[in-house]
Amino acid sequence: MKALRYENGQLGLTETAAPREVAGEAVVRVSLAGICNTDVEITRGYAGFAGTLGHEFVGVVESAPEAPQFVGRRVVGEINAGCGRCELCAAGDPRHCPQRTVLGIVGREGAFAEYLSLPVVNLLPVPDEIEDARAVFAEPLAAACGIMERVRIDRETRVAVVGDGKLGLLCAQAVKAQSAAAITLVGRHENKLRVARARGVETALAGELPREWQGAFDVVVEASGAGGGFALAVGLVRPRGVLVLKSTFHGATGFDAARIVVDEISIVGSRCGRFAPALELLARDAVDVASLVTEEFPLADGVRAMQRATENGVLKVLLRP
Amino acid sequence: MKALRYENGQLGLTETAAPREVAGEAVVRVSLAGICNTDVEITRGYAGFAGTLGHEFVGVVESAPEAPQFVGRRVVGEINAGCGRCELCAAGDPRHCPQRTVLGIVGREGAFAEYLSLPVVNLLPVPDEIEDARAVFAEPLAAACGIMERVRIDRETRVAVVGDGKLGLLCAQAVKAQSAAAITLVGRHENKLRVARARGVETALAGELPREWQGAFDVVVEASGAGGGFALAVGLVRPRGVLVLKSTFHGATGFDAARIVVDEISIVGSRCGRFAPALELLARDAVDVASLVTEEFPLADGVRAMQRATENGVLKVLLRP
Repeated sequence: MKALRYENGQLGLTETAAPREVAGEAVVRVSLAGICNTDVEITRGYAGFAGTLGHEFVGVVESAPEAPQFVGRRVVGEINAGCGRCELCAAGDPRHCPQRTVLGIVGREGAFAEYLSLPVVNLLPVPDEIEDARAVFAEPLAAACGIMERVRIDRETRVAVVGDGKLGLLCAQAVKAQSAAAITLVGRHENKLRVARARGVETALAGELPREWQGAFDVVVEASGAGGGFALAVGLVRPRGVLVLKSTFHGATGFDAARIVVDEISIVGSRCGRFAPALELLARDAVDVASLVTEEFPLADGVRAMQRATENGVLKVLLRP
Repeated sequence: MKALRYENGQLGLTETAAPREVAGEAVVRVSLAGICNTDVEITRGYAGFAGTLGHEFVGVVESAPEAPQFVGRRVVGEINAGCGRCELCAAGDPRHCPQRTVLGIVGREGAFAEYLSLPVVNLLPVPDEIEDARAVFAEPLAAACGIMERVRIDRETRVAVVGDGKLGLLCAQAVKAQSAAAITLVGRHENKLRVARARGVETALAGELPREWQGAFDVVVEASGAGGGFALAVGLVRPRGVLVLKSTFHGATGFDAARIVVDEISIVGSRCGRFAPALELLARDAVDVASLVTEEFPLADGVRAMQRATENGVLKVLLRP
């Protein structure tokens, strides 16, 4: 089968073996996949991964020897595959299993291919009303929903999201759709901010923030993945407030420890979320993901698609096997 | 009166006016004061403070026009003086009042002097069983106790404290005395670690940590104030664990944002604690502070004392006006 792989420091489309049947797993024929910044980071050395890239997908179950009722169903899949035996896995949440593999990121071939394999327990059927081009956002939207697992947000909470890339647009909309809080998205691109504004999110240009916003937000979500965005985000957090780090930017970031200590700020890392809340938001069309699609490429043009994903102003690039 | 002041980039002992009586405040004759790393940092530019240094003290109330019952009492004093009108002050906690002054740190003359002034509401009488040389630790011990305000620690919580300076020794002992958790203090000096070990804290040398301690602690307290200690502390935190930042080290620190995000670690700043729990620990001798005193100087030798406080292996240096 065709697969977009990163190996020996090279990204390329290669012919590779289709996944074999593995106990407890299902083989899924990929219908559509999405390129994430993490995929781009991997081609720059992040995570030390070599193999088929990709962890955002929607597909159809091709085979599942131990769960035949799944065959032919349209599914999305959570990307962390646990050992199944440790305390975390036993509790039903393999996201921090120390032995986990992660689709297209850690020790498991990814979704930029004709087929992939995942544990059956990772798969979620996609409701009919969510077409493929929206279902493919289940993973990044789940990550955005994961904010609600890590910090308490209620009606009174003043929330800012920094970064108007695809992650920031999803985070702002997800928090808006899952809470009664007022959300402000801070970015640099009027055309991107407009997407969130149409869903009830307030927006502001990073260069034009009122002085009184400094230290005024209870919760600030850093979704820019840039050092400047991080500094801006820290500045917006009130004393004893929370900064949620969503971006897995590569390398070390500088931060002013004195501000964190003196104002007793909490910095909370947030990675993967569960898919169920994301599917629920997509099913009731509570989040606009369609506007985030910049372009779709055939998998055969995967190298060009990855390049396109790094260009300025580009949001989501999709790959169709 | 004599005061140890930092002005125009110079540290010096100068003759200065004694504090005047201010509405709501008391004038305290300082019996003994302690030098904190923050005082040293201020002489390197931290906080932009100019004036009389010092925020750790025990003294006797000299005058308090609106609270005459305080006159002649031995007291310690919380160092944040709020506006008295904002929401935080109204709730009885001025530590994050945006208009606050802070004794010897922000807009208020400090304790390295014959007299200081603080709001009466900041003062706490010192029980007779706590002699001056231990009462002078109320402020840094309260800061150590403040950890318990910022993170939940119970019997099952695995806690590590990184740094065997005076702050680390106080943090390890305070958490030990206030919880049923097992505490491990990680440091570089056998003679310092011994102080905590005598109070039931487990200890380990930083260069000799077992590999399996990586990512094994639920809560890690960074009290070294050094970049290397910070990196070591981050490494010890388990996925979804908490790193408590106690050290107000000056300047920017590098950190690996990917580790924080991928392992969903929380970094929690912690600054000042309330004095009541600290006095309670001192009254029942639950914490050894006497062993932390390296040397006492007369205030007249304050410049030399500050120099001494920066030397290797030195713990607490006291000043007696």
